[in-house]
Amino acid sequence: MDVNEKYFSNITSRERAIFEGAITMGALFHQFVGTPVNKDSKESLENAIKESLELQPAIEKVDAKIDLDRLNDTLSDFEYTSLSGDMLDIRIHTKVDNVKAIIRIEFIEELNYPLMYVEDIEEL
Amino acid sequence: MDVNEKYFSNITSRERAIFEGAITMGALFHQFVGTPVNKDSKESLENAIKESLELQPAIEKVDAKIDLDRLNDTLSDFEYTSLSGDMLDIRIHTKVDNVKAIIRIEFIEELNYPLMYVEDIEEL
Amino acid sequence: MDVNEKYFSNITSRERAIFEGAITMGALFHQFVGTPVNKDSKESLENAIKESLELQPAIEKVDAKIDLDRLNDTLSDFEYTSLSGDMLDIRIHTKVDNVKAIIRIEFIEELNYPLMYVEDIEEL
Amino acid sequence: MDVNEKYFSNITSRERAIFEGAITMGALFHQFVGTPVNKDSKESLENAIKESLELQPAIEKVDAKIDLDRLNDTLSDFEYTSLSGDMLDIRIHTKVDNVKAIIRIEFIEELNYPLMYVEDIEEL
Repeated sequence: MDVNEKYFSNITSRERAIFEGAITMGALFHQFVGTPVNKDSKESLENAIKESLELQPAIEKVDAKIDLDRLNDTLSDFEYTSLSGDMLDIRIHTKVDNVKAIIRIEFIEELNYPLMYVEDIEEL
Repeated sequence: MDVNEKYFSNITSRERAIFEGAITMGALFHQFVGTPVNKDSKESLENAIKESLELQPAIEKVDAKIDLDRLNDTLSDFEYTSLSGDMLDIRIHTKVDNVKAIIRIEFIEELNYPLMYVEDIEEL
Repeated sequence: MDVNEKYFSNITSRERAIFEGAITMGALFHQFVGTPVNKDSKESLENAIKESLELQPAIEKVDAKIDLDRLNDTLSDFEYTSLSGDMLDIRIHTKVDNVKAIIRIEFIEELNYPLMYVEDIEEL
Repeated sequence: MDVNEKYFSNITSRERAIFEGAITMGALFHQFVGTPVNKDSKESLENAIKESLELQPAIEKVDAKIDLDRLNDTLSDFEYTSLSGDMLDIRIHTKVDNVKAIIRIEFIEELNYPLMYVEDIEEL
């Protein structure tokens, strides 16, 4: 069976690039939010996020940054906090056929919450 | 600030309908997979999945079904199992402007894994 | 193989009652935190928490309450929020042989975080 | 307020060492199960598990190993799998006052599931 033909012929390459990145972004959010983190463990968590997400279909590259300043604001007396959506600054780069897209999550001050959106999308 | 204008003017209503449904589908997967479940608790879990996902932006309706037969196959001696992706049969209905989309996850025998795809999308 | 004899003979019934309740409490926290919730969906989420946790070994009963006031404080413009540890008020009742224990999580104002502790433990 | 006196004076140091390790073990399970993983990303995920868990109260050290053989068995056509409880081989070392405990999860062939238990506990 050709999965692409059977299940994805009703959407364009552009739409598929958005679809795969958005699935991965939604998954990331609920997979890692809540993990204990502080400035010493930040890097290992960023690496795990990056390396696990890059395994998924259509994902070319992932830039994962945990915002240290937001992290420090919420440190408890135990000197660590739980990773929250507000701390995430992540770009998921997808490629489907000749289309590349970047799905982004970042905290938007004006909205006071972390927004997921399509930062860039282009046909090569 | 107009969020839609600032962050979503680079994609069409059709693409946005796919984007929002895919975010929610990815999130669902990692939020609920792993939850203990058996035939008695199945309905309460389906309800919680449905009601929590319907809160999210652009989501009109969610049909959430946990496949009982797949569930019974994996029951441990303690008479329950952990919810896995294989058991999910879910449709997320999104609406953005005049576009309606259905994002689906279901186990595909031929692939031997649960596939997420755009089951239907149409302009009204 | 007698699992209890092989793996649990080094701890008392009292210790086992604490162990099983604590495993379940830790699991609960990371399973459900992050789920979208508002006042309309609160009850279905409480039910799903209760019914899924009660499936686990040694768990007699679970009282799951999501604190509505804490919930309302954090409602976003979209009229829902993500379940956080601060909102949880949960008692997990365990029974191992003749010992009953209650493992509790509740938000403690003085500490400014949700504390997990053994609320009560007694031999019958 | 003395948290230990107010909330933990009803249990012994031995019981507390078990309690804290079990909370962390339960949390770990639901935090990381489901993460995409293969042999290349295994190490970054083990590191993230280890470093995040070591932040929690009373946790001295964590040995986190993902079982590669179990992993290879379940690799999909996309060359990765989702982390499952069956692949976890983890020891959480706790210390409370003069008591040290090791909480373990490992897959037990005879039981056909991953068991959590107290591997060792001793007063110094």
